[in-house]
Amino acid sequence: MAAVTTQAKRADARRNIEAIVDAATALLAVNPDASVQDIAKAAGVGRVTLYGHFDSRTALITEVATRAIAQTEESLRDLDLSGDPREAMAQLLDATWQLTHRFGAIVVAAGQALPPDELRRAHEGPAKRVRALLRRGRQEQKFRADMPVEWQITTIQAVLHAASGAVHRGEIAAADAPRLVTGTVLGALAAPAGS
Amino acid sequence: MAAVTTQAKRADARRNIEAIVDAATALLAVNPDASVQDIAKAAGVGRVTLYGHFDSRTALITEVATRAIAQTEESLRDLDLSGDPREAMAQLLDATWQLTHRFGAIVVAAGQALPPDELRRAHEGPAKRVRALLRRGRQEQKFRADMPVEWQITTIQAVLHAASGAVHRGEIAAADAPRLVTGTVLGALAAPAGS
Repeated sequence: MAAVTTQAKRADARRNIEAIVDAATALLAVNPDASVQDIAKAAGVGRVTLYGHFDSRTALITEVATRAIAQTEESLRDLDLSGDPREAMAQLLDATWQLTHRFGAIVVAAGQALPPDELRRAHEGPAKRVRALLRRGRQEQKFRADMPVEWQITTIQAVLHAASGAVHRGEIAAADAPRLVTGTVLGALAAPAGS
Repeated sequence: MAAVTTQAKRADARRNIEAIVDAATALLAVNPDASVQDIAKAAGVGRVTLYGHFDSRTALITEVATRAIAQTEESLRDLDLSGDPREAMAQLLDATWQLTHRFGAIVVAAGQALPPDELRRAHEGPAKRVRALLRRGRQEQKFRADMPVEWQITTIQAVLHAASGAVHRGEIAAADAPRLVTGTVLGALAAPAGS
């Protein structure tokens, strides 16, 4: 009987965790400042239950962001990036932007709540794909090779996040973002004129 | 007598505020996670006194960042940016980077603690100078004009902050940062090949 009760409690806990993460994802996608109270309410659990599963708002946002990045990773896995490196990069940026934008204010919330090291770790999967493409583009002399690849990856992430923030603040239209991101990144990666 | 006492209290409060802000600037420049407790201790005041002047760690960091940006602004005011726009931009980026780097981890602390709108407002002064230079560079056809100027300013700030974070995490050497920032930004601003 004790075993069954424990199992039932675990199933309950799992359901609560899923409800909390789903509610947090939905609310944070619209408002990066969504409170723990609002999230608990939308999940149909009490604040005490929420804090029983997540120590802090930051812990909850870490889980939401980690899942968003995992979903992004899954969606990007099937892209064919074997063509011209500049075109492949444009395609990858476009797809990444669409996902960044779909998760909306979660990107803003994660940028505010998570320490940079944590953000960096969460991006390790997507970074691998970019790294491989940057290396191939260098070999084919389509991308400048006078900068560390890791710096170029950092730049690409910074530009994507900057675009997400700019759309969120209403500075640029979401529809313009893919063109601006791609143009800016391809410019930053191009060999300088006269070199 | 009452007036004198009030005046003395005010002078005391001012001294405490200066001591707190100086201590916070010194500690945050080394460690973006410096605690309110450590800052109060270094300032020689109690936590209660600190919280009497600053409602929260965020309020204190806002003050530190606002002053750092004002100092940056003062240092940049005398730059001669009248020459070739690309060279002027390189010079401006170099000077801005040196200041960003001098304030070290404060940039990281501010990025973590302040909401994006607040960060944006704090950058309004430096942004004006960049905006004027971007406009002149467009007129002289040295910078691409197929993107909003405000987006280009956002990109420049994102690249500077990304470099600060990368140096802080040990990914790039501080000595390499000016070259990487300038190369990346000038690439992003250049008219695309074949246009």
